[in-house]
Amino acid sequence: MTTLPPGFRELPVTEDFLAVNGPLYARRDGNQLALGFRVEQRHCNPAQSCHGGMLMTFADMQLAIGANFAGDLKRFLPTVSLTSDFLAPAPLGSWVEGRAEIARQARTLVFAHALISADGNPVVRANGIFQIRGEPDPRFDIRALFA
Amino acid sequence: MTTLPPGFRELPVTEDFLAVNGPLYARRDGNQLALGFRVEQRHCNPAQSCHGGMLMTFADMQLAIGANFAGDLKRFLPTVSLTSDFLAPAPLGSWVEGRAEIARQARTLVFAHALISADGNPVVRANGIFQIRGEPDPRFDIRALFA
Repeated sequence: MTTLPPGFRELPVTEDFLAVNGPLYARRDGNQLALGFRVEQRHCNPAQSCHGGMLMTFADMQLAIGANFAGDLKRFLPTVSLTSDFLAPAPLGSWVEGRAEIARQARTLVFAHALISADGNPVVRANGIFQIRGEPDPRFDIRALFA
Repeated sequence: MTTLPPGFRELPVTEDFLAVNGPLYARRDGNQLALGFRVEQRHCNPAQSCHGGMLMTFADMQLAIGANFAGDLKRFLPTVSLTSDFLAPAPLGSWVEGRAEIARQARTLVFAHALISADGNPVVRANGIFQIRGEPDPRFDIRALFA
């Protein structure tokens, strides 16, 4: 069990890929949902920092779940496009954390971005576009989980 | 053990994150190194297709290893930026495969892209920028492995 910053608790897993690589943790900060995880050896690249694949997985979840929370969308939001700029390494043992900002929520698309940090230092700048489709599904009612 | 298309063999793992989520497979096609993997349950999202995080991990490795192979760079190439457009889902059980094209190899940067398919259908369009730095390292001599 990793040590968590105050107020964070485990995000329930609905994805097999995150059952393998998670857990991720979340904390409600007003109208935003902060997400975080601690970099373990199993997340690392040969340089002993977090693999880009894990950071992009985190960015994808941060933006999709953050958009779901901010807009109370209650849906699984398929990713249309995600861009990640790798500003600096996230070292083994560091706490990685981010908050999604919503640039625009349209009828069928939501545009979100986040600056992700490791122990307070910016490590990834992410921009994502996600699809809004189908009916609300109680499995993805993230506001009910972090009321 | 998954069934592999002709000529593919397991890529040796130098990354903890890929020891967890791999293996990936590779085949030399002339001056390109084709990479592939089969989508298993552990790679999936709630829609029973490959999670975007796994597809971006694959895209990242495809472009970095493909650039290393094409330019005979013999280095771990840190990712500067990666953009992934999700064209269609990669279903559970499908064979995901790609080949990196090198748009430009400069002194300290290499620009690469790939169209990744699942059972022959395009699923991800990826563009990446990678850093070339340090001295060649025999651990990353990918040409020696696929001579």
